[in-house]
Amino acid sequence: MPELPGMGGISGDFGGNFFKPLLICDTNTEFLAAKIRGDANIPICTLQAGESHKNWQAVEAILRSARDAGLGRDGTFIGVGGGVIGDISAFAASIYMRGCSLALVSTTLLGMVDASLGGKTGFDLFGVKNLAGTFFPARHVYMPMASLASLPLPEWKSGMAELIKTAILDSDNFLDELVSLAAAFPDGSFSGGFPPDFASRMLTSSAALSRCISQAVRFKGAIVEEDPLERGGRRVLLNLGHTFGHALESTAGLGTISHGEAVAWGIARSCDLALALGVCPPRRAERIRALLSAYGYETAAPHPLMGSASGDFMQALGSDKKKRGGNLSLIVPGEKSAQAVNTAADSFMNTISQIIGI
Amino acid sequence: MPELPGMGGISGDFGGNFFKPLLICDTNTEFLAAKIRGDANIPICTLQAGESHKNWQAVEAILRSARDAGLGRDGTFIGVGGGVIGDISAFAASIYMRGCSLALVSTTLLGMVDASLGGKTGFDLFGVKNLAGTFFPARHVYMPMASLASLPLPEWKSGMAELIKTAILDSDNFLDELVSLAAAFPDGSFSGGFPPDFASRMLTSSAALSRCISQAVRFKGAIVEEDPLERGGRRVLLNLGHTFGHALESTAGLGTISHGEAVAWGIARSCDLALALGVCPPRRAERIRALLSAYGYETAAPHPLMGSASGDFMQALGSDKKKRGGNLSLIVPGEKSAQAVNTAADSFMNTISQIIGI
Repeated sequence: MPELPGMGGISGDFGGNFFKPLLICDTNTEFLAAKIRGDANIPICTLQAGESHKNWQAVEAILRSARDAGLGRDGTFIGVGGGVIGDISAFAASIYMRGCSLALVSTTLLGMVDASLGGKTGFDLFGVKNLAGTFFPARHVYMPMASLASLPLPEWKSGMAELIKTAILDSDNFLDELVSLAAAFPDGSFSGGFPPDFASRMLTSSAALSRCISQAVRFKGAIVEEDPLERGGRRVLLNLGHTFGHALESTAGLGTISHGEAVAWGIARSCDLALALGVCPPRRAERIRALLSAYGYETAAPHPLMGSASGDFMQALGSDKKKRGGNLSLIVPGEKSAQAVNTAADSFMNTISQIIGI
Repeated sequence: MPELPGMGGISGDFGGNFFKPLLICDTNTEFLAAKIRGDANIPICTLQAGESHKNWQAVEAILRSARDAGLGRDGTFIGVGGGVIGDISAFAASIYMRGCSLALVSTTLLGMVDASLGGKTGFDLFGVKNLAGTFFPARHVYMPMASLASLPLPEWKSGMAELIKTAILDSDNFLDELVSLAAAFPDGSFSGGFPPDFASRMLTSSAALSRCISQAVRFKGAIVEEDPLERGGRRVLLNLGHTFGHALESTAGLGTISHGEAVAWGIARSCDLALALGVCPPRRAERIRALLSAYGYETAAPHPLMGSASGDFMQALGSDKKKRGGNLSLIVPGEKSAQAVNTAADSFMNTISQIIGI
């Protein structure tokens, strides 16, 4: 199998041949799958792109391709794409003959720093995101930096938010790296959100970007290795910004705001909560908020998209509570990294109302 | 939750309440699921009975019931039935929110001594048995002996063949137990196969039967614990009789002969092969064949159902070969237990032709 273009940056070479590979891609990444295949006789399963096609039909299409190609348990599914392709390729690999081999070629920033690591697989069912899934880590993950050159802006927003989240959890050094990376843009670049030339400018700093991605991979890799099945412990910290973010997404209407922007805004709210609870030094909270703003994320509360639906927001936030027996668990930045604050939901709600500004 | 009738024999009591249970049964075991539910407010998902309904639609029906009942990752799926219900309940549990809890109430002999242990889950897809599946062991397995009273004869045949297989792998003592159990039937009972009063007679010896089931559970439990994902090692011995058996099933036409009868016949062929290779003392091979006959299994070669399709049989047997790079691996009884004989397929085929008597 030919080497992937630009593969050297993060994970090195493809490292030899896979036994009985099946390439899985979507209509956006088909060209890359074809490039990987080269002249080799490797079957390709092409799916429709997008979250709306992250369903059982897509999984079945992959299983059918594998079956038609005569793959056994020693075959290898190679998912080429972003989070959606990664999740369904990995799910299909986890159930084909009770589990075959899996490699991922991660083509988005979010995929590189988050989705391709940690073994979470899944697809949407009955309108519920990832209602069905497994834990099934990929044996190999490839991150062709060149694929970021054509990444659409919303994808950058999603990935950068996870990168900032990871830096908060990891170290001040990592935060410093992200500050420097933002400084590569002229003043005012982000005044209207992400600038249209974000991708090209970012890739001119590709050495720094590679370092950040590498560090995020190392950090998340260590956390998920400690707790591969998400039984508890430090892995829960990866939810920083996500509970607030999900509630905003659902209040604004799914798809109205990108996941990354919602998470970034959620991180800002976590800073507010950490300050209110006195668990994070004000200087650190300010630093995090400044970094979010430096990348053009909305950090003000209430969020402009919440409109008059602030009651809905509180309800969406509270819906997590039922699943944990009346307690609301949220992740907030601490002096270093972050921590879970877990308390009776009712006593929280006043504080949170103030933080949201409603 | 009320205690199951006759549950004391193997696994003790139900042992308290499950958090958020969902009962899963088929039209044959619905009465038992209702008994388990009693007056409690527990949802029941009833599926169509039989292997032909072991498909994605059944899995989806279970997931939908769980979703409608508001189960979270801390819910428990309780599969009530034989191998089919066990396999699909366990598969559904393994993927619902990336894995919820699983308990099995195993109502058939095959389920008790084989299917409910070892964590193999799955369903049939594109006409291939268990093409999709996972490894997901149940946290609790209950074996209500009373449910065996109404077990149809083909189910007994399937279960007894696995019991004999396990005794061969385990110990002479276990074989002795099965010899004694057979002796509870008058001479000539099995001259025309299994006698119609087999179930009621077997259950009059229910203490001995319980001992055999317990021993099989202990033995298989120890083996699968060593190798939960079937990576190699001793677990492969559990295939004793199955390669020959599967080839017979496929030659006779799927469904023509019960799985248990095919496996029993396959064990007799493994004895022949072990003798031809000189790896099993003739006395032991004779003892095993006598035990199979004592339970009314057909042990003669060629099998009456093979008719003139002996070429098909050799082909079906050889189809395993391709998956392992030209080598055919078969399990045969040894001096004690059993062993894998793994050699170039071509040099095997002459010996096997003679053994099959074709």
